[in-house]
Amino acid sequence: MTAGETDPLQLILDRVHARLQGETERGSVADYIPELAHADPGRLGLAVQLTDGRSFVAGDADEPFSIQSVSKVFTLTLALGKVGDALWRRVGREPSGSAFNSIVQLEYEQGIPRNPLINAGAIVVADVILAGHEPREAIGEIVRFVRFLADDDSIRIDPAVARSETRTGYRNQALANYMRSFGNLHHEVDKVLGVYFHHCALSLSCRQLARAGAFLANRGRLVGGGHSVVSEERARRINALMLTCGHYDGSGDFAFRVGLPGKSGVGGGILAIAPGVASVAVWSPGLNANGNSLLGSRALEMIAREAGWSIFSG
Amino acid sequence: MTAGETDPLQLILDRVHARLQGETERGSVADYIPELAHADPGRLGLAVQLTDGRSFVAGDADEPFSIQSVSKVFTLTLALGKVGDALWRRVGREPSGSAFNSIVQLEYEQGIPRNPLINAGAIVVADVILAGHEPREAIGEIVRFVRFLADDDSIRIDPAVARSETRTGYRNQALANYMRSFGNLHHEVDKVLGVYFHHCALSLSCRQLARAGAFLANRGRLVGGGHSVVSEERARRINALMLTCGHYDGSGDFAFRVGLPGKSGVGGGILAIAPGVASVAVWSPGLNANGNSLLGSRALEMIAREAGWSIFSG
Amino acid sequence: MTAGETDPLQLILDRVHARLQGETERGSVADYIPELAHADPGRLGLAVQLTDGRSFVAGDADEPFSIQSVSKVFTLTLALGKVGDALWRRVGREPSGSAFNSIVQLEYEQGIPRNPLINAGAIVVADVILAGHEPREAIGEIVRFVRFLADDDSIRIDPAVARSETRTGYRNQALANYMRSFGNLHHEVDKVLGVYFHHCALSLSCRQLARAGAFLANRGRLVGGGHSVVSEERARRINALMLTCGHYDGSGDFAFRVGLPGKSGVGGGILAIAPGVASVAVWSPGLNANGNSLLGSRALEMIAREAGWSIFSG
Amino acid sequence: MTAGETDPLQLILDRVHARLQGETERGSVADYIPELAHADPGRLGLAVQLTDGRSFVAGDADEPFSIQSVSKVFTLTLALGKVGDALWRRVGREPSGSAFNSIVQLEYEQGIPRNPLINAGAIVVADVILAGHEPREAIGEIVRFVRFLADDDSIRIDPAVARSETRTGYRNQALANYMRSFGNLHHEVDKVLGVYFHHCALSLSCRQLARAGAFLANRGRLVGGGHSVVSEERARRINALMLTCGHYDGSGDFAFRVGLPGKSGVGGGILAIAPGVASVAVWSPGLNANGNSLLGSRALEMIAREAGWSIFSG
Repeated sequence: MTAGETDPLQLILDRVHARLQGETERGSVADYIPELAHADPGRLGLAVQLTDGRSFVAGDADEPFSIQSVSKVFTLTLALGKVGDALWRRVGREPSGSAFNSIVQLEYEQGIPRNPLINAGAIVVADVILAGHEPREAIGEIVRFVRFLADDDSIRIDPAVARSETRTGYRNQALANYMRSFGNLHHEVDKVLGVYFHHCALSLSCRQLARAGAFLANRGRLVGGGHSVVSEERARRINALMLTCGHYDGSGDFAFRVGLPGKSGVGGGILAIAPGVASVAVWSPGLNANGNSLLGSRALEMIAREAGWSIFSG
Repeated sequence: MTAGETDPLQLILDRVHARLQGETERGSVADYIPELAHADPGRLGLAVQLTDGRSFVAGDADEPFSIQSVSKVFTLTLALGKVGDALWRRVGREPSGSAFNSIVQLEYEQGIPRNPLINAGAIVVADVILAGHEPREAIGEIVRFVRFLADDDSIRIDPAVARSETRTGYRNQALANYMRSFGNLHHEVDKVLGVYFHHCALSLSCRQLARAGAFLANRGRLVGGGHSVVSEERARRINALMLTCGHYDGSGDFAFRVGLPGKSGVGGGILAIAPGVASVAVWSPGLNANGNSLLGSRALEMIAREAGWSIFSG
Repeated sequence: MTAGETDPLQLILDRVHARLQGETERGSVADYIPELAHADPGRLGLAVQLTDGRSFVAGDADEPFSIQSVSKVFTLTLALGKVGDALWRRVGREPSGSAFNSIVQLEYEQGIPRNPLINAGAIVVADVILAGHEPREAIGEIVRFVRFLADDDSIRIDPAVARSETRTGYRNQALANYMRSFGNLHHEVDKVLGVYFHHCALSLSCRQLARAGAFLANRGRLVGGGHSVVSEERARRINALMLTCGHYDGSGDFAFRVGLPGKSGVGGGILAIAPGVASVAVWSPGLNANGNSLLGSRALEMIAREAGWSIFSG
Repeated sequence: MTAGETDPLQLILDRVHARLQGETERGSVADYIPELAHADPGRLGLAVQLTDGRSFVAGDADEPFSIQSVSKVFTLTLALGKVGDALWRRVGREPSGSAFNSIVQLEYEQGIPRNPLINAGAIVVADVILAGHEPREAIGEIVRFVRFLADDDSIRIDPAVARSETRTGYRNQALANYMRSFGNLHHEVDKVLGVYFHHCALSLSCRQLARAGAFLANRGRLVGGGHSVVSEERARRINALMLTCGHYDGSGDFAFRVGLPGKSGVGGGILAIAPGVASVAVWSPGLNANGNSLLGSRALEMIAREAGWSIFSG
């Protein structure tokens, strides 16, 4: 590519953005957290961070949004760093496989959540990170870790969102108390949920999120620096969990359509990994019936197809 | 590699075979189908079919075994060829996600099985293949398709196994009648199960199975011939389904450990796909708690790691 | 009461019949068995058999209808006569407690149905009655028993209804095969269901049904004759089962409103017992959401209140 | 009966007490509430309050124990007094029917508990009683009501038990938060549970409990005074709920064996009602597998049989 030419990847992003920007069917903005209900369904951001260091963006890629459950990928990484495979004694590695997931499954499986990427599992992960510290310290550690991954100290938690969840999170209170009744939480429920609600309230732009997730595409190493975040095997395994469990009861469909490991959040963000090649972050606040970004999923399907990134092709 | 040298892949297979052959913990042979209960837990076969046409084997790779549920990959391919995406109106694409799967899930989801790789879903697939024909014709079509894929006309159904299933398959009778009560089977239950029990009784060696599955690693084309079996997109999507749903309630664990799309059968066989590179078939009759071959899973984990084939790495 | 006066109970029946006869909201006739779908929702029959030998009727009390699940009370009585308390090793005594009953519960409880008055439980009861005989013999025994109880040899099975069920009973096929997979049916599924479908097709009028059930109100003895059918304790226990389990997932509501042990059938019939006093049979084909006769339930509520028969009063 | 003779009922109580006192198989004392774990499994109390005003006792009938869930009968009565049949929009009237009850059922039925005598239902009842007041006021109202029913101002709540529950009640926290997430609790979870835990900690002797429940045997009126607590119809309906739902997943078995409406508590107490005749309270701390007093159930079975009180006999 000579100077003056546009990179083909930039062309793909621009094309995808142009095609989706005019869509009128954009899903419904999550309304169960008051602060999220204000999000503008018209927004659409796309960002790609290649493992060779280059990055490309389109649309609202620099506007911060609440990453919500996407943060579970980062807390899982932190918790594995703390306790390693001992984590798997307290949380499973199987898809939850049911719209009736969460609490029904917890009753049948005696307080052990199916995987670390559903709410119940991420609450156990928060309990692991808490590890005898005060919530404030654990939250600080998580923020510092995400800033380190994204190489961006401006990343912060949105306190209004964190408070909003704390006030209305009855379902998560139920999950946490239920697991505690089985002895699968070691700290006070309010402290664990304090950590959980705060990391869900992390605010990142697509550009920041793509960069923060890039170590998973780069065999566990930071892009550019070469600094190792996790071993190659652990990066591979986190990707496997994202593929089988990253989209609640829409995980199979996402694998079928997009063919990349990914994790979605009810704020409308999705992080997807093309191993060896790229980390992709998309954002659009309208959700589909499974609670995943409607346009975000479509954008990823188009990007993965046009760039030829599916992990299920040769 | 000059003449006289052994291919590194052959060395890997030999090493894996040697390490596992002496294992005393080999799982339990399936005993609910009388004919399978006679299988020798001491057997272990490994076969790799590369997309470049070369193949490698180790151990009991030329001994035919009952492929059982592995056959669901082939009937799914056939059914998609017949009705295309209309199949997804009658069967889902999500992991079943529960040891309490099958019939409980069917009640909650009104007779629609979660995916085509669990029993209920494969019974719907058999109903699609039947499509107004007699069971004998549908069975003939399936056998011819597998022979075509493996380029081997000696492949056959073991009639004693088929009869054995027919006699004892009360659980599958329950599933089929239950789905019929919701209108999700269009033919008589006995005819549909006749087709299902017979294709599960297909007998293939590891070498034959690896060859039969190779089109999934080769962008939908037969290895060697270049003949297209399915489109590249469909091959990719079948691989995605194998990854998320191929091992019942152990699918997440298989993705985590092995990192390849795969489908197991209670006969102890597993077919795994390294997209773009290879199709791998392993066989050892002893099963783990989830009903997947114990040594077969371990063999695939070792082969995938040593060959660097995980789809979750770069 | 001197000659010429009308018995107060006759006045109650006449009043209830008059009030309900004009009702326009009559529920929906069961349509899943074709032969039942023809029933006229305008019919309403009431019959009371007192333990002192007198009986009273109103409306269509002499028209035979398909008693369907009401027959489970009689087969339960027969099976207890054959194997006594050993029956309770194969079937429970607890309400099913869920609209998702049947097959979900069977999976959790390993093929043991919750009670003998739901379909799965009654199929086990039919298996007990079969006891090595041919279906024709078992069916004959059941018919003779009901004729004996009602003192009426004209009672018969409607062969068109029995055939209709045999053709369309996929759900019951599923239940039976499922229990057989757990070893909780000892005979071939088709034979057991042959018995089950035939006893459900018994045709009785309200007058006959009230008489057939009167032994349960009369401490286990036939009214008039004094002949003992079951011990007093067994009559009491069958009544207890009818109260807690006789109306599927509407059993609690029936106890709350009517306050009498009862058993309903999808043909629109209900048999209720006022211990020590009377057996009551009502019939109206329209069903409520729980599958129990809508007007029949209301009629029983009014009769029980006006006659002061609730078992929950002093 | 002339002076000097012992009443036959006293003889029954003495005989039952004598036969059970020596039993070595006494079940297990509830250990999940620390304060209850100290109860002496050797204790056995029996008390009968006849509607004619006479009363009889045997064993430890004057020793106060924690009535726990038996208190749900009294709070249900109070809540019906406040809101009448509107209560049934927030709680059902069907048996829960499953050892997997509580939270699974709540998910399927959108936060509406099956009946007011299981924990979830009683928590809704507590929310109704709270009705805008402070917990302290609601608790005071409940205590005054029970004192009024028992005509005994010495009845009190055991503060150590109430605190003990507050500290360890994670499961109830989960239930309450879960229902709140569906909007089926109107007050703060901690306030509602404050009321709930306190009324469960009511301490009564068998004699007091039999007296407090006697209005249910006496067509809704206080024994002796003639003062009406509830209408006759409401008393009948509360009795019906106790029969179908009073013993968790052992309700069917209790109806089958004892044949009386009853409500048990994990403290080992049971209140049973023989409509028109008597209220019976028994206490023995050892529990059976369903969480109901083992010796208490047996005592009631013997008393009901010998006194001929089953509601299922004539």
